[in-house]
Amino acid sequence: MFCRLLSLLVAGAVLAAMPVWAESPPLSEATLSCLGCHEDLHPGMVEGWRASRHARITPGQAMQTTGLASKISSTDIPSGLQDTSVGCAECHTLRPDAHADTFDHFGYQVHVVVSPEDCATCHATERKQYGQNIMAHAYGNLVDNAVYADLRTSINGVLQPGEKQLSAKAPNNATKAESCLYCHGTKLRFDGLASKDTAYGPVMLPEIAGWPNQGSGRINLDGSKGSCAVCHTRHRFSMAEARKPYTCKECHVGPDVPAYKVYTASKHGTIYSAENNDWDFSAVPWEAGTDFRAPTCAACHISLVTKPGGTVVAERTHALSPRLPWRIFGLPYAHPQPKDPQTSKIKNAAGLPLPTNLDGSPASDFLISAEEQDKRKGNLQAVCLSCHTQSWVDGHWQRFENTIEVTNEATATGTGLLAQAWENDLAEGLPQNSSIFDEYIENVWSDIWLIHCNHIRFASAIGGGGDYGVFADGRYVLNRRLREMHDWVESRLPQQ
Amino acid sequence: MFCRLLSLLVAGAVLAAMPVWAESPPLSEATLSCLGCHEDLHPGMVEGWRASRHARITPGQAMQTTGLASKISSTDIPSGLQDTSVGCAECHTLRPDAHADTFDHFGYQVHVVVSPEDCATCHATERKQYGQNIMAHAYGNLVDNAVYADLRTSINGVLQPGEKQLSAKAPNNATKAESCLYCHGTKLRFDGLASKDTAYGPVMLPEIAGWPNQGSGRINLDGSKGSCAVCHTRHRFSMAEARKPYTCKECHVGPDVPAYKVYTASKHGTIYSAENNDWDFSAVPWEAGTDFRAPTCAACHISLVTKPGGTVVAERTHALSPRLPWRIFGLPYAHPQPKDPQTSKIKNAAGLPLPTNLDGSPASDFLISAEEQDKRKGNLQAVCLSCHTQSWVDGHWQRFENTIEVTNEATATGTGLLAQAWENDLAEGLPQNSSIFDEYIENVWSDIWLIHCNHIRFASAIGGGGDYGVFADGRYVLNRRLREMHDWVESRLPQQ
Amino acid sequence: MFCRLLSLLVAGAVLAAMPVWAESPPLSEATLSCLGCHEDLHPGMVEGWRASRHARITPGQAMQTTGLASKISSTDIPSGLQDTSVGCAECHTLRPDAHADTFDHFGYQVHVVVSPEDCATCHATERKQYGQNIMAHAYGNLVDNAVYADLRTSINGVLQPGEKQLSAKAPNNATKAESCLYCHGTKLRFDGLASKDTAYGPVMLPEIAGWPNQGSGRINLDGSKGSCAVCHTRHRFSMAEARKPYTCKECHVGPDVPAYKVYTASKHGTIYSAENNDWDFSAVPWEAGTDFRAPTCAACHISLVTKPGGTVVAERTHALSPRLPWRIFGLPYAHPQPKDPQTSKIKNAAGLPLPTNLDGSPASDFLISAEEQDKRKGNLQAVCLSCHTQSWVDGHWQRFENTIEVTNEATATGTGLLAQAWENDLAEGLPQNSSIFDEYIENVWSDIWLIHCNHIRFASAIGGGGDYGVFADGRYVLNRRLREMHDWVESRLPQQ
Repeated sequence: MFCRLLSLLVAGAVLAAMPVWAESPPLSEATLSCLGCHEDLHPGMVEGWRASRHARITPGQAMQTTGLASKISSTDIPSGLQDTSVGCAECHTLRPDAHADTFDHFGYQVHVVVSPEDCATCHATERKQYGQNIMAHAYGNLVDNAVYADLRTSINGVLQPGEKQLSAKAPNNATKAESCLYCHGTKLRFDGLASKDTAYGPVMLPEIAGWPNQGSGRINLDGSKGSCAVCHTRHRFSMAEARKPYTCKECHVGPDVPAYKVYTASKHGTIYSAENNDWDFSAVPWEAGTDFRAPTCAACHISLVTKPGGTVVAERTHALSPRLPWRIFGLPYAHPQPKDPQTSKIKNAAGLPLPTNLDGSPASDFLISAEEQDKRKGNLQAVCLSCHTQSWVDGHWQRFENTIEVTNEATATGTGLLAQAWENDLAEGLPQNSSIFDEYIENVWSDIWLIHCNHIRFASAIGGGGDYGVFADGRYVLNRRLREMHDWVESRLPQQ
Repeated sequence: MFCRLLSLLVAGAVLAAMPVWAESPPLSEATLSCLGCHEDLHPGMVEGWRASRHARITPGQAMQTTGLASKISSTDIPSGLQDTSVGCAECHTLRPDAHADTFDHFGYQVHVVVSPEDCATCHATERKQYGQNIMAHAYGNLVDNAVYADLRTSINGVLQPGEKQLSAKAPNNATKAESCLYCHGTKLRFDGLASKDTAYGPVMLPEIAGWPNQGSGRINLDGSKGSCAVCHTRHRFSMAEARKPYTCKECHVGPDVPAYKVYTASKHGTIYSAENNDWDFSAVPWEAGTDFRAPTCAACHISLVTKPGGTVVAERTHALSPRLPWRIFGLPYAHPQPKDPQTSKIKNAAGLPLPTNLDGSPASDFLISAEEQDKRKGNLQAVCLSCHTQSWVDGHWQRFENTIEVTNEATATGTGLLAQAWENDLAEGLPQNSSIFDEYIENVWSDIWLIHCNHIRFASAIGGGGDYGVFADGRYVLNRRLREMHDWVESRLPQQ
Repeated sequence: MFCRLLSLLVAGAVLAAMPVWAESPPLSEATLSCLGCHEDLHPGMVEGWRASRHARITPGQAMQTTGLASKISSTDIPSGLQDTSVGCAECHTLRPDAHADTFDHFGYQVHVVVSPEDCATCHATERKQYGQNIMAHAYGNLVDNAVYADLRTSINGVLQPGEKQLSAKAPNNATKAESCLYCHGTKLRFDGLASKDTAYGPVMLPEIAGWPNQGSGRINLDGSKGSCAVCHTRHRFSMAEARKPYTCKECHVGPDVPAYKVYTASKHGTIYSAENNDWDFSAVPWEAGTDFRAPTCAACHISLVTKPGGTVVAERTHALSPRLPWRIFGLPYAHPQPKDPQTSKIKNAAGLPLPTNLDGSPASDFLISAEEQDKRKGNLQAVCLSCHTQSWVDGHWQRFENTIEVTNEATATGTGLLAQAWENDLAEGLPQNSSIFDEYIENVWSDIWLIHCNHIRFASAIGGGGDYGVFADGRYVLNRRLREMHDWVESRLPQQ
């Protein structure tokens, strides 16, 4: 409290001497109209925006910054947008014909759901890169994959009493939207206008199925994929926020992909937690050593990172793939990243839409080559080398690739036990043309790779080891679960 | 370190120009006596208080602030208390006749345990509201409920070898005090005075069974219920602290009520974590948008929240219930909130002290009506609407109520499996007049609603979905546990 | 962002008036040579150091501070090191003959791995104390203990299909290094020089097996044990960082030793999280009440803590043992701390290297006496008494020792169930001269003490109770797992 008071007192003194850009730029007439009501209706929304860069600088001013410090990548921003701040109307009335939810709102053609294509008006490069990001395709990658469809029903289905097994009542849309699709994104659908009671009386507003949602692969009402707000939350759209690890945590904290947990228990995370209040998360470019002393998720995989003098360490990429050689979660076996971000097209030798066969061998035609992996490894390790020697980095990497190998071996052992259960009719799966996720023993099997092998790999990749690879859902639990599978099969096999 | 240094240097310059109230007000003679020894004995205690508002302003000064900014609600503060700061003696010698632990301490009639009735001297409204808070009744609600008694023995009992089942040795008071009663509150009992060795030699001091404890429903030595220090920790008693989510975490982090975990992985929690250092947690009233950009637990359920202009969004309530339509944890089925905060009075159709029947149908006589639920929903959603449109809020709520429904269905399926086990004498429960919590299969059943359905509901309510509703103890695990129950029953049923 | 800007603006004004010591001291010629290349190669490393006290003050200047504020304990620092800052060369060229990895690097005799013996040049007392710390012996305590060897193979072995049980393929060194040895420390081995490609062309550099590693008991290339960087991370070596709880989290977050989790859900942790931005983590000595309002791990177990006037509350100890009466994790039963930090020398009555017998009775010859426990309790409680009364502290401690007793009882019950399984040949263990960790039921048994009893004890010790002692892997789960063991044994015993 005392500190805040000081800040305020100091702020008073300093504000008088603020540089010119701190004076708010002009607002468009349309945005002024929006604010007329919405400032009173939803002040949180408006104040978030008011604290944003969007409110404090015009695209025209932003375009004057070029080179590494540039925060805007389009060179063809319409002149009508260049001289006012980026306010409500600038985004919510863009490209009205493209959006199915465009409606007449007090004389303005407004759409509710702003899409990456709208953002591309000023941020064309980022939008294009994001289109190559596997996360932008998260909806289709999940929904159009038959194996995942089986898994999703197994998870989201409402179990009912059944004969040999419990039966799963298909999940409804509300359940789907807050389960897998919360992160993967929903498919939005415009269902017409309807009158809503508001503080200003009844107003005709769009009904949108699948709304709200900010999933990374949301199917928008202009047909585009993704939501920039998944990382840059509305209406501040902050780069600083996206560079902090909490952003990624939202979808990468669960036991299937424990990146955040592992990070905060790593040396990098320790340093981040202890010191991040003194770092600069808004600097562009982001200088290793001076702006931050330990990397966050963004530093390793996304951000434009330079050395203090300005030498580029890593180019900014909203595709992420240039700094991702291996895919280490979500599937039975770790494997090289897919070539195409649309992964439902993949077929393994058995014809299943999986990037490996059930014995772990890769469906290589669909995966990047060793050469491409090496290139990406180089891109990623360039960040490591900002603070570590090559020997250090090599030692880390050798352990990580060993861990990919041994966790794949563990999955193969578990898969063998499940096959034994199927072959002896202790459970029904592939040989019986039945679900591979709807019985207890099958769920133990999926725990093995989806939870435990993933923990071990993330602990290795992000932490260089530690408890999430051992007791915290790691090797200790992996081996207990494998023994449980063995025990289960053994005790049910006919006595010989 | 550099930042701190700056702060200190700046502080020096600024302190000279501090407003009048920053001069510490006079201390009472009694408090000066206390400080004479205790400042040296327990400096942490004294320095915490010294940084508090209690030390820096008198009740008389505080009463001059009226309206929304008021931090004190009593209008009849005794004149003898109005002109000194609220020091040691002001609280610890109040109402000496009411406290069983009042003792003569160097000439002062001191009691150790300050109760909400003491705090009510200045904070009458908050104390009255807290009396209506279900948390104030947490001791009796647990201890006077026969079903919970069974559960508590199942949890806290020290298991011993037994014949058909392990037997539970009843837990002792020390175990109870640090287990369930840590949060629910202990029942304090004055056991007379005894001589204690202290740094100042032997002193006669009260012996208090059940001490220390700061549980929300503590039974105090003046017969009152609760502890204000459960959220406003001693001796700073900070509003800012209570508004941060860590406060609630202490009792709402565990898998039975994973509110904090879910919050920090939500968009609100992401924004909080990334930006809270720049927010004002001490402002009264608390302005949405300017003082904070994302709500904390307190913003949604407790605090006086206004729009920037001062329009009230939500009234302050220490009862919480005005902003709680549903009860989503701690019981087999989610249900409307109880009418009376003393829940051990509830009886379902079978005569059990539960708010629903075993099939999930509500014990409606004891629960709030749909109309009251709607009113509370309105109070709560007013906070949402500060930053979100009505369409957004409606979409969120529709999913939340769907989730209540489908998780209740899952509990019904699990309860059916348990009933099947009981009916076939695979386990002993209600039909056998035996404990429903003392066998393995019964514990798997309680996991289903107490752990997994709760995770799914909290993820829905607080996060709008996400991993705590799926892989992180959510639907994925719920269905695996249900299949485990099915497997367990199936493998033990006599072969037909 | 706005706050940062203010800081920067203010900083500019203030820097002009900085005290003399803020001028960087001279660098040695050797360190200047290092910086010539490494500043460009690894700026993160260099900037971390530049922000450190090592860069900003010379040992000679530091020696002028005496008494409680001293940060340096050696009195015989070589004069050649006293007048330059502690730069790259000062540490990495110390004692060249002692280090197996010393190599000629552009004319300098450099070693890669700096050891506690190097740090002892200036910090002799801390190094000596750390040598008495059980953590310094963590490598040998694990590797030289036959019971732990069995456990390690059980955890890290790569399970393969097997006959009666799955068989474990021995883990390779890469796995070991990122599993248990990540925290315990690896044994480093110099494998000669090899040419490495670097940004400056090929350079001959040491190959070091077991590198990188910062484990607490690392066996260094000069034969010494430990790594100061385990808590004071490279190259800032910050005291403030080590005083924050994140440091300890790295190795004390997992379910086997859930100290950090329990702390953050305790009242102390709540206060820390809410207020730590306003505390002073760099002050020496560390004043209770003024520098911090709630203790961190370091405040209770390590740091020099004083009252505001300077009276010593607790002496600094890098041994930790003076403030640790009980050992509450990592072994089947809690017990008094071992006398000798090298615990692999312990033998129980059965000849096993364990500090208790399988019935829980202590191997007393190897453990500290009740008198020593009392002395350590006094050292530890002195910190508690800075903020709490003796009655409060006594109540806390009585519950903690009760919890040690009842969790030991629970372990005895579980051990009895396992013995029953062994005796009836349902599993193979001690009677069969077989591993006690390689079957499912044995893993459930180890969960009981390694996970659940530990949670309960940590929740008691650090939090005074709460959810980690109940639902969050505590009593609730402990009793469920014991019932699972009973169920497993019962269902496999021959029908009578």
